[in-house]
Amino acid sequence: MPEILKRYRREDPYSYTLGSFPTYELLKAAPERCERILYSPAYTGAKELCAAAAERGIPCLEDAKSVARVGGKGNVYVVGVFRKGEDKPLVSRCHVVLVNPSDMGNIGTILRTAAGLGEVDAALIAPCADLYDPKTVRASMGALFRVRTAVFESFEAYRKAYPDRALYPFMLEGSRLLGETPKPEGSFSLIFGSEASGLPPSFREVGQTVRIPMTDQVDSYNLAVSAALGLYSFLYRQDR
Amino acid sequence: MPEILKRYRREDPYSYTLGSFPTYELLKAAPERCERILYSPAYTGAKELCAAAAERGIPCLEDAKSVARVGGKGNVYVVGVFRKGEDKPLVSRCHVVLVNPSDMGNIGTILRTAAGLGEVDAALIAPCADLYDPKTVRASMGALFRVRTAVFESFEAYRKAYPDRALYPFMLEGSRLLGETPKPEGSFSLIFGSEASGLPPSFREVGQTVRIPMTDQVDSYNLAVSAALGLYSFLYRQDR
Repeated sequence: MPEILKRYRREDPYSYTLGSFPTYELLKAAPERCERILYSPAYTGAKELCAAAAERGIPCLEDAKSVARVGGKGNVYVVGVFRKGEDKPLVSRCHVVLVNPSDMGNIGTILRTAAGLGEVDAALIAPCADLYDPKTVRASMGALFRVRTAVFESFEAYRKAYPDRALYPFMLEGSRLLGETPKPEGSFSLIFGSEASGLPPSFREVGQTVRIPMTDQVDSYNLAVSAALGLYSFLYRQDR
Repeated sequence: MPEILKRYRREDPYSYTLGSFPTYELLKAAPERCERILYSPAYTGAKELCAAAAERGIPCLEDAKSVARVGGKGNVYVVGVFRKGEDKPLVSRCHVVLVNPSDMGNIGTILRTAAGLGEVDAALIAPCADLYDPKTVRASMGALFRVRTAVFESFEAYRKAYPDRALYPFMLEGSRLLGETPKPEGSFSLIFGSEASGLPPSFREVGQTVRIPMTDQVDSYNLAVSAALGLYSFLYRQDR
């Protein structure tokens, strides 16, 4: 890693948390992945931050140049440097599976929702937006460090890795309405397509397709909204 | 309105749809507010667009300069010009009330969710992000033209305008869990605070506070996610 940090690029083996909130989340939830923490001279919480870092044996340094370069135009005073690293979803958990998501804000927001609802791991199917980009981290509010998440090269690769579970592709023309799908007995995966085009028709054969109630006033829901409604309904609705 | 359009400013009496999708939504859902439509020479769908505009008596012109200036860096080929104008929420409908929302993407996404779930009108409590900014319009995917929405100078002003309805402030410490709140008999409003700080404690006295199930792994949900979960649960859950 260079002495003065460079702006993030997707091929780097490490990425950044921008701002104190996600940096504290990194410290709390994934200190083993945190390389160092940097802050600008204008940051007023340096003493507390350095104490929290020291407790976990992590260097915490004033470095105006690196913070300015990495933070860009975003008024960033604190940067955390962390190593990338996947954490395979557990077989026993509910999975939210995102097929070719293209928006980092959506991926981050969905991880935040998953961490909040609980007992949810995540799988991304490539090609997809960068899971580790600082924009994804920021949208996740640090939930990236809380939710087991892995990227798979194809949906088939995901299915081979997790063969025995109920699969629910969310599609506009899904055959069951959300909330009227019989509750699965074992573990299950909720599958969502890309922002631009949803899931391809071949997913009709993959499992029990589900549709979210929707008027003719819109073409679709925002991806993070769809995933939230699906997860909430599957995890929290009452049995009937 | 100047001959060559300028970049949008909040004080302008008109705003813009950027891109063909929201522009077609403007044409379909609110043609009476549409002043004109402009496209760049590179736009391949001009013939169809002009036909749709002509059917509604709206001018549709090639104007590379205006499109470039209004569209900014966003690869925009089509711009619709529309007059701002509020549309008061109906007393009989469910209202989603956003108190001091600061993110245009969230406001737009919530309008899109409201239009999709149906029978929902919207109220924004000032100060708040600009309802008419092209970024809000874009995040709404044109749902801004489908959902009755008005801005109120204070929550008290909203409450005076709509005195007789059940009010549900969504708060982290809400006394009822979402999904376990008795279903309201008459019309009702779901109330959400700002992204940064939620609703102030005074809202505890306003109505039946509701909390969304949440682990200790996050501090809060994204605002558009919270609103979607609230609306879906109140509108679609089964009576018990």
